[in-house]
Amino acid sequence: MTTLNTWVSVPEYSDFSIYNLPFGIFSVNTEAPKGGIAIGEQIVDLSAVSDLGLLDMDATFFNRSTLNEFIALGKKITNKVRLDIQKLLVIENSPLKNHPEVFILQKDAKMHLPVQVGDYTDFYSSIEHATNVGKMFRDPENALLPNWRHIPVGYHGRASSIVVSGTDIHRPMGQVKTNDMKVPVFKASGNLDFELEMGFVVGKSTELGERVSTKDAAEHIFGLVLFNDWSARDIQKWEYVPLGPFLGKSFASSMSPWIVTLEALEPFKVQGPEQQPEVLSYLKYEGENNYDIQLEVGMSSSTSEETTVSKSNFKYMYWNMMQQLAHHTVNGCNLNVGDVMASGTISGKDESSYGSLLEISWGGKKPFELKDGSKRTFIEDNDTVTMRGFAEKEGKRVGFGEVSGTIIPSK
Amino acid sequence: MTTLNTWVSVPEYSDFSIYNLPFGIFSVNTEAPKGGIAIGEQIVDLSAVSDLGLLDMDATFFNRSTLNEFIALGKKITNKVRLDIQKLLVIENSPLKNHPEVFILQKDAKMHLPVQVGDYTDFYSSIEHATNVGKMFRDPENALLPNWRHIPVGYHGRASSIVVSGTDIHRPMGQVKTNDMKVPVFKASGNLDFELEMGFVVGKSTELGERVSTKDAAEHIFGLVLFNDWSARDIQKWEYVPLGPFLGKSFASSMSPWIVTLEALEPFKVQGPEQQPEVLSYLKYEGENNYDIQLEVGMSSSTSEETTVSKSNFKYMYWNMMQQLAHHTVNGCNLNVGDVMASGTISGKDESSYGSLLEISWGGKKPFELKDGSKRTFIEDNDTVTMRGFAEKEGKRVGFGEVSGTIIPSK
Repeated sequence: MTTLNTWVSVPEYSDFSIYNLPFGIFSVNTEAPKGGIAIGEQIVDLSAVSDLGLLDMDATFFNRSTLNEFIALGKKITNKVRLDIQKLLVIENSPLKNHPEVFILQKDAKMHLPVQVGDYTDFYSSIEHATNVGKMFRDPENALLPNWRHIPVGYHGRASSIVVSGTDIHRPMGQVKTNDMKVPVFKASGNLDFELEMGFVVGKSTELGERVSTKDAAEHIFGLVLFNDWSARDIQKWEYVPLGPFLGKSFASSMSPWIVTLEALEPFKVQGPEQQPEVLSYLKYEGENNYDIQLEVGMSSSTSEETTVSKSNFKYMYWNMMQQLAHHTVNGCNLNVGDVMASGTISGKDESSYGSLLEISWGGKKPFELKDGSKRTFIEDNDTVTMRGFAEKEGKRVGFGEVSGTIIPSK
Repeated sequence: MTTLNTWVSVPEYSDFSIYNLPFGIFSVNTEAPKGGIAIGEQIVDLSAVSDLGLLDMDATFFNRSTLNEFIALGKKITNKVRLDIQKLLVIENSPLKNHPEVFILQKDAKMHLPVQVGDYTDFYSSIEHATNVGKMFRDPENALLPNWRHIPVGYHGRASSIVVSGTDIHRPMGQVKTNDMKVPVFKASGNLDFELEMGFVVGKSTELGERVSTKDAAEHIFGLVLFNDWSARDIQKWEYVPLGPFLGKSFASSMSPWIVTLEALEPFKVQGPEQQPEVLSYLKYEGENNYDIQLEVGMSSSTSEETTVSKSNFKYMYWNMMQQLAHHTVNGCNLNVGDVMASGTISGKDESSYGSLLEISWGGKKPFELKDGSKRTFIEDNDTVTMRGFAEKEGKRVGFGEVSGTIIPSK
């Protein structure tokens, strides 16, 4: 990695270094939302830079409430915008130095969902997570189902209820039937959980009937976000057979506001786990397709400061994004720009790296403590869950900021 | 039902009688798609009627490629438009008589998907279908799973691949593993099926955290369409545990182009099947909430004329639409205008009313014949499946036209 120095003041451990420059949608006061790029503690207002004639782009593409139309222009253009901004933030005689009005402090801005999500798919691609769940709910000796090592198992999720970080989440109500009950009851979920995930945003559409190879998949991935797939375990357990998770998930999923481009993450590629048995040809891939992204989850309550409850890494994923995308289109299913595909819970091998409370408290049997000594097995009202993630190499950091959400009582 | 006579020529058994007047999106030649209402063999061009000052509406709402923004105006307005058109087609001195340019022959128009579908949910609400599938795939003695009579079981489907009637469907490729195989293979689906369903289009949005009661649910349902949930049974069988159907369904679903409003279907309401055991309070309902809609499926091939392979009825549904919508929102999941919720396969008690080939050929064990004597268990390339549906009472008919699709070879 070439070393770059920006004339903008960037704190030492900022996720939003000159090497990152993620895209997001922000607004200030009552102004309409528009596109920006994060640098340090600031946001570069892209339409303002465009209006100065410093981007080879029509400002109208940034004066939108989502990035969909911008992303649809294609990587050749969107990457150029990112690199042009990078140059403007690095060069000595940058014309931006005379235009402080294009910089907005992040603390003065409100962030919005960066894309309108057409379809949302959730995978189940961590072998550690799938094994833990299989041990708890099925057979400890045969925790993984027969298809798991052959298929990047996934399901369709609910797109409408994806919200941006910072949005409060109502505790869902629903049908629950535990083994000791004769009939189900209707109640507020008592086993509310998070799932530590990453999601990618589709950057290039496909037609019905078209297949994308693992080799071409990266062309269809605009960038990544942190993703919390909130889950009501008691609702999920009673409803999910035989058609999969539904209301146990569809009340909300939270997304971090800054999309870190695949290009910014390029230096952090690593080899993924060995896949045994050998996968079918359409799932084979070459080179490094996992990403070394350090992840952590913090929980706080109205009485307790934040406690780190998990430290995991995106590199643990058994199935990588290229395989997920190739699998998703292998039947001819079409993709649209703005679709989101999430990884599934990212657990590692040891307990400290489990990506959900279901695993951390082992189905509610092993309570843990927050900093003030209060006990938890699942999430209580007014608890806040915050996920963070960053990649780092040779002192250069590319991070995601955070996705945070507080659980509030049911309406 | 009051008898109405229109001065427009309507064939005797037309689905699009003066009592119906469904909404759709059509285009002529290279003109942009726009909104219309079907009457007999014609389409009333709504923006043209609006331009004549005969509707209390801005024509711009009809000059769109989808009905979403029109529907979002609310039933008070959309119903008024339908009733205003009805009046204009009935009264003796109708100003439309002098404006033949507002009428387009359906055979001269191309129909489009009537709404942009945000999220698509598929239910599983026919007890006969769920029982048949359970008998085949699980235990014949305990065919229904324990949750089935308590929950209108459903799952999230893929919205991007919903296409309008008449669109050819590529046979999906995918992973298949039958019981006699040691490892899965990648191939074109050999068990391609249809599912006879009806879908409803959401007409009123809800906020996150908001619940809709069965009593208020009708306010959120704009209207109904015929829906073919194409299914690749071999792909589905290998992939669906534990997270439900995914690529076995997401290659395509077909929708009829005309949305028949809930108001037009009002006279055809009937009592649904008794629900035992008693359902939880939030699923209880009053009055008649099923609809007597006669359904049939025809199959033809390049060598054979159409054969009727199923005759079913929407009134058989165990769970009605009001219960489906109340259940969908009970966890606070938000709805958007244009969302589609489909019923699941609509099977009746006897074999002639089964709504899928999986049931008709009993998992491929009982071949049936097309008119030219050729045998089928599942759908072959170049076969066409056409579904039709209508309600009729006192000689008054309100129908859906058809949803048709031809299977073409994989790309």
